[in-house]
Amino acid sequence: MSTVIDDIGELVTNEPGMGEGPLGIVRDAALVLEAGRVAWVGAAGRAPAADERYDAAGRAVLPGFVDSHAHLVFAGERAEEFAARMSGRPYTAGGIRRTVADTRRATDAQLRAGLRRLVAEMARQGTTTVECKSGYGLTVADEERSVRLAAEVTDEVTFLGAHVVPPEYAGDPDGYVRLVASQMLAACAPHARWIDVFCEDGAFDADQTRTVLEAGIRAGLIPRLHANQLGHGPGVALAVEYGAASADHCTFLTDADVAALAGSQTVATLLPGVEFATRQPYPDARRLIDAGVTVALATDCNPGSCYTSSMPFCIALAVREMRMTPAEAVWSATAGGARALRRDDVGRLGVGARADAVVLDAPSHLHLAYRPGVPLVMAVWKDGERLEL
Amino acid sequence: MSTVIDDIGELVTNEPGMGEGPLGIVRDAALVLEAGRVAWVGAAGRAPAADERYDAAGRAVLPGFVDSHAHLVFAGERAEEFAARMSGRPYTAGGIRRTVADTRRATDAQLRAGLRRLVAEMARQGTTTVECKSGYGLTVADEERSVRLAAEVTDEVTFLGAHVVPPEYAGDPDGYVRLVASQMLAACAPHARWIDVFCEDGAFDADQTRTVLEAGIRAGLIPRLHANQLGHGPGVALAVEYGAASADHCTFLTDADVAALAGSQTVATLLPGVEFATRQPYPDARRLIDAGVTVALATDCNPGSCYTSSMPFCIALAVREMRMTPAEAVWSATAGGARALRRDDVGRLGVGARADAVVLDAPSHLHLAYRPGVPLVMAVWKDGERLEL
Ligand SMILES: [Zn+2]
Ligand SMILES: [Zn+2]
Repeated sequence: MSTVIDDIGELVTNEPGMGEGPLGIVRDAALVLEAGRVAWVGAAGRAPAADERYDAAGRAVLPGFVDSHAHLVFAGERAEEFAARMSGRPYTAGGIRRTVADTRRATDAQLRAGLRRLVAEMARQGTTTVECKSGYGLTVADEERSVRLAAEVTDEVTFLGAHVVPPEYAGDPDGYVRLVASQMLAACAPHARWIDVFCEDGAFDADQTRTVLEAGIRAGLIPRLHANQLGHGPGVALAVEYGAASADHCTFLTDADVAALAGSQTVATLLPGVEFATRQPYPDARRLIDAGVTVALATDCNPGSCYTSSMPFCIALAVREMRMTPAEAVWSATAGGARALRRDDVGRLGVGARADAVVLDAPSHLHLAYRPGVPLVMAVWKDGERLEL
Repeated sequence: MSTVIDDIGELVTNEPGMGEGPLGIVRDAALVLEAGRVAWVGAAGRAPAADERYDAAGRAVLPGFVDSHAHLVFAGERAEEFAARMSGRPYTAGGIRRTVADTRRATDAQLRAGLRRLVAEMARQGTTTVECKSGYGLTVADEERSVRLAAEVTDEVTFLGAHVVPPEYAGDPDGYVRLVASQMLAACAPHARWIDVFCEDGAFDADQTRTVLEAGIRAGLIPRLHANQLGHGPGVALAVEYGAASADHCTFLTDADVAALAGSQTVATLLPGVEFATRQPYPDARRLIDAGVTVALATDCNPGSCYTSSMPFCIALAVREMRMTPAEAVWSATAGGARALRRDDVGRLGVGARADAVVLDAPSHLHLAYRPGVPLVMAVWKDGERLEL
């Protein structure tokens, strides 16, 4: 089955050397999708014949969003905790331990239903590639099923046994780290591509992070890291040292951290939905971009610190709060996410790329920031198939 | 045709004396809509028979949002101006004059199409009552057609000839005010319910505002006012003095302004999307609510200072940026908007209210703030009819 998307007012290709500006914008364009790939890009009305034709009627078409940081395998929710935090009321029954308890109690079918619901919700908002982490099981069996279920919906599965020390290891965090780096890793690695650690005061320190990353690398996983979210710390330096694909959060950075990122292949993945939902200061995207760091945007979708699944919302926040230009924000939400996942087949719409495309009900990508909160995604193709939204 | 919405997990009624808390929440509820009105509210599974049944499956149901401040009759857009502003680049071709020129050049059919598109977009996001202002025509003929077209889609039409002094009156603002208060008002009043003035330095001063408001009142219109958006000024005091239904923006208030609002029937309508899109400081909702002022939330949807049409987005901003609780924000976006329009038939879901209801794909109203940017509205009834979204 082939499809031509015709009469595209503004096509964002993200192809260097193609079209105008950093987004490789081609105006009055058409796009042919065939066998799951982009088969042709050119002028409107000039496309070769295809089985189906979609008339974009002058609208903007973008690569599907690449959400490179999400925690989607969990049960329950924490809306009351959110409301208490926002209203300055104390709330003691919440926190990640609540989600861990709910997740452990849930059946596979319940976890699968929640996961698929969120992936579908993301697709409705234009996300066609999503990374998905474990980290609410924290036993060998519960982490194994988390990565196994995640692998049903995405190739980008991350083993995050080192998310938090579970209650039963409260007195023996190093014992938990040994478990993560041995049996838990062995059970999870066959389902995962990535190894991740929440490297932060109160979670895992530098030595513990090294132990888990090194074991993960030996098991064939590639590192990525939760780093420097809540304060300064060794996370970003470790991410660069271990050649991580991405250091995620990057809210508290020294000049040395920024220089290390700039001199590396490690992407800085910014998650402004977290700062929105926790009323924390936003990361300084401008400083990173101006230093030459590659920046990605992602949702961090999770029931505690940020329960948005919306890449358009993150783009609007990036422009308002992190002083990214709309073009930079759109690039970071597509091509930037692809870099953070070491993918060259997504986040772009040149010939040979995966046929993951989004039609906006708007004439340009600018509307994603110009019209915050408005559901502008009107059609989505994933691997060349049009999704039911 | 009657409909029962059954198995509602959380029904927000906004009825004093009904259910729990300030939102009058009833759990495990059902709602019967008949002849455009709410005919019955009670326990799930106990509703009288109806022609159709909608199973809310434990989800939350709210009154449709009441967006009491929007500028929807215009042509063109200003995305480039927005991008320049956000990126700190100079941009001289923009501003309201651009929209005035585009609007004057547009045909009735073009204006009507744009207006209907925005009203439909709002409905998809749960807005069932929308106020709509003129103010981009600024000639007798162009203002007349603006209010006439607005009256095709809503009963809440506002004549805002005093939006800005048009270029052709740049040397004679008082002459423009005389035109607004005489022929323009005479042409527009038959289509409108409300008279509004943009009372602000650089727009219309206190004397000009008085002239327009008094003429409007003589013509049978009820006042509302754009007041204290960009700086301190006489707007709020005038709104209270003239018994305006609402003073809108209220970003810069003295203690005397707050006291005047608290001692009046004038609602303070806050428009946080504007501050989001212009990177200005947000109004202090907490101060107003704590002083006893009735607060409404609205979008201010317009192509210049805020092109969101999303009441859920405004609720999320109100919680994050203005320290409203989620319940306060939801109340202000429904019942508060109704107060700002002096309506007692909308913004609530008690027996006799208009059958304007929204089903969220979420178990509670908290999710509107807890899940920012996510399109949670899954079904909407307006006057008892289910809308195609
Ligand atoms: Zn995370
Ligand atoms: Zn306005």
